[in-house]
Amino acid sequence: MAPRVSPLAPAAFPDLPRVAGVRLATAACGVRYAGRDDVCLIELAPGTAVAGVLTQSHTASAPVLWCRRALKGGRGRAIVVNSGNANAFTGSVGLASVQRVVETTAGLLAAKKTEIFVASTGVIGERLADEKITAALRGLKSSLHENAWQGAAKAIMTTDTFPKGATRGAEIGGVPVTINGIAKGSGMIAPDMATMLSFVTTDAKIPAKTLQALLARGAADSFNSITVDSDTSTSDTLLLCATGQTKHKRVSGLGDPLLKGFRAALFDLLRDLAHQLVRDGEGASKFVTISVSGAVSKRAARRIGLSIANSPLVKTAIAGEDPNWGRIVMAVGKAGEKADRDRLAIRIGGIEVARHGLVVPGYDETPVARHMKEPEITFEVDVGVGRGAATVWTCDLTHGYIDINADYRS
Amino acid sequence: MAPRVSPLAPAAFPDLPRVAGVRLATAACGVRYAGRDDVCLIELAPGTAVAGVLTQSHTASAPVLWCRRALKGGRGRAIVVNSGNANAFTGSVGLASVQRVVETTAGLLAAKKTEIFVASTGVIGERLADEKITAALRGLKSSLHENAWQGAAKAIMTTDTFPKGATRGAEIGGVPVTINGIAKGSGMIAPDMATMLSFVTTDAKIPAKTLQALLARGAADSFNSITVDSDTSTSDTLLLCATGQTKHKRVSGLGDPLLKGFRAALFDLLRDLAHQLVRDGEGASKFVTISVSGAVSKRAARRIGLSIANSPLVKTAIAGEDPNWGRIVMAVGKAGEKADRDRLAIRIGGIEVARHGLVVPGYDETPVARHMKEPEITFEVDVGVGRGAATVWTCDLTHGYIDINADYRS
Repeated sequence: MAPRVSPLAPAAFPDLPRVAGVRLATAACGVRYAGRDDVCLIELAPGTAVAGVLTQSHTASAPVLWCRRALKGGRGRAIVVNSGNANAFTGSVGLASVQRVVETTAGLLAAKKTEIFVASTGVIGERLADEKITAALRGLKSSLHENAWQGAAKAIMTTDTFPKGATRGAEIGGVPVTINGIAKGSGMIAPDMATMLSFVTTDAKIPAKTLQALLARGAADSFNSITVDSDTSTSDTLLLCATGQTKHKRVSGLGDPLLKGFRAALFDLLRDLAHQLVRDGEGASKFVTISVSGAVSKRAARRIGLSIANSPLVKTAIAGEDPNWGRIVMAVGKAGEKADRDRLAIRIGGIEVARHGLVVPGYDETPVARHMKEPEITFEVDVGVGRGAATVWTCDLTHGYIDINADYRS
Repeated sequence: MAPRVSPLAPAAFPDLPRVAGVRLATAACGVRYAGRDDVCLIELAPGTAVAGVLTQSHTASAPVLWCRRALKGGRGRAIVVNSGNANAFTGSVGLASVQRVVETTAGLLAAKKTEIFVASTGVIGERLADEKITAALRGLKSSLHENAWQGAAKAIMTTDTFPKGATRGAEIGGVPVTINGIAKGSGMIAPDMATMLSFVTTDAKIPAKTLQALLARGAADSFNSITVDSDTSTSDTLLLCATGQTKHKRVSGLGDPLLKGFRAALFDLLRDLAHQLVRDGEGASKFVTISVSGAVSKRAARRIGLSIANSPLVKTAIAGEDPNWGRIVMAVGKAGEKADRDRLAIRIGGIEVARHGLVVPGYDETPVARHMKEPEITFEVDVGVGRGAATVWTCDLTHGYIDINADYRS
């Protein structure tokens, strides 16, 4: 499969500045791929606070199980990531691989084991050749660099067609801080090439507990509001690391007004990275924004939005540039959340299509059909029963998705 | 779109005998299609008991709302079905259409309005030209016939590539009874061409309450255990009508041993019809049986089975004839039901692939890959935590599905 770059990709990888306390290195270890870097070491300064959001899968990978444990400490000195093998469904053998990578890294950095985070993405059910990773760690350590962001974003790619990165600046009490993030993922998950991974770092000083609360909220409106194919990875991992290298006023907790700008910048960056995943959705030709309002709660609105976003019939209609609002009605109906059929209103591309549960009088499909031909599509749906609102993002379902996923392993 | 017959279709429409108390007629009313019958009248003898299972959609169609009301009476004299227009998302205009069809039919048959059932399947959001149906009813009545089953099965088709029917015989207290059923549906639902409809009749005499309990159980293991694309129709309607024209011992209730043979025959017929829907799944090239065991309950097993059956990644792997058990693991993990990763066992085509949460030692993919090339695929998954078991059926996700659904309306 020639990795043609997604038509929805950003023009270029953004220019990521240094983040004090963060250094990166990559190497070609041949875990699975030949001729490309496939292992990445992210070094974090002593005292770095770490927060994480991990897959809810009941068959989570060995690295996810380790991260879940390590996150209890709330401190990190390094993240070791490999692509090509997910170390999932590998039982005790997989846990032993994680242990060896963690021990070697901790030894090299004079860190505690629980300060070392790991993430793996690639084929499932095969032993991870961890010896190739541990053998490379010393070399990786000696080549650590503050400006290796794009290389890191490339080393963690699997079926991705472009590397994903984002940066934002903010101020905490008048002192500038930086947030950088990288991500990979192309199906919401293709478990062969398992997963969504994202690593976000900042030089701000934020206590681990506050960092975790921030990340949980930020993830809900970004990574947890996107879907490519409704499938959930065994390996989804999002880590947020705050090195505390920049001196600013002390942040007391989640409600501290000092955090306002930082929070907005962080959420914006998370949304940017999440959107890049959708833009690299397998076979995607359209980027779709679905805003649901009038639900009984924000949670209900998100579920309705995801029901629309995950419907194969809605997704194929988008691929066919067909303003098929009947399929949106169907998807609202099957979401299992309260909706009033006789108050339902739908806009496509800002144009009112249905109102009070009926197609609008004198409906003219022409401008709506024109909108459907654009690369960015918007649906607005009001379900007429409350004030809950949420936005989700997805892509269309095309022949490209079938090509990629029906033929991948063979 | 030339309606090429599904490669998974049965060789022929079965030979359906008469069911005492049931007569059928069809007509070409031009509701939407030209040159084919699109309205069907099923007449039921006075005293016929009726049970029904209807869509759970929160945006159910006008005919479904009517059936829900009429079912409270438990009696039926006729079912009027049209294809081409689903009369869904049509508000009070749609309810008025239903009223006119019901009133005209009730008048013709000297029946109560609540004894007339209606079902519509086709485009959504457009007014049903009910005047074309009511104008045809007198002619339909005069052409009623006991042997018009295949014609009826054809008249209710939308994107279906073949008419669907089944018949079974049974004995109640030594007296032979007959069960005939017809069905339509091709996507689990394509809401443009909305829906799964099925009408089952028998000459047995079974009280409405018992009939309803029987149907609810039978539907759970048939129509509610199949999926093509995870989408739920606004119009799904399954009606079971018992004319009571055959004299046999009185059936006292659901637990009556007299019902044993009838129950088995009915459930078998429902499964047969449900499988025919899967065999006509849009773009289907494989018929897939997924048996889940070892779950905490039957309900949990079914949810895990449907999670596997609905996973686009599993379905595309099947289309690609790829024995990709990693995707099955992923789908088990995302189902939200308890599973023990380290006890998970998977068989494909009867061949053990994974055991104790790991690929089997010395795994040889050759025979498994051979099985994946067959038109009928079986997965057996034991999740290792209990004794709950369930079987679900689905088809693969192919380029054909995209072709049909990305281009249908245009």
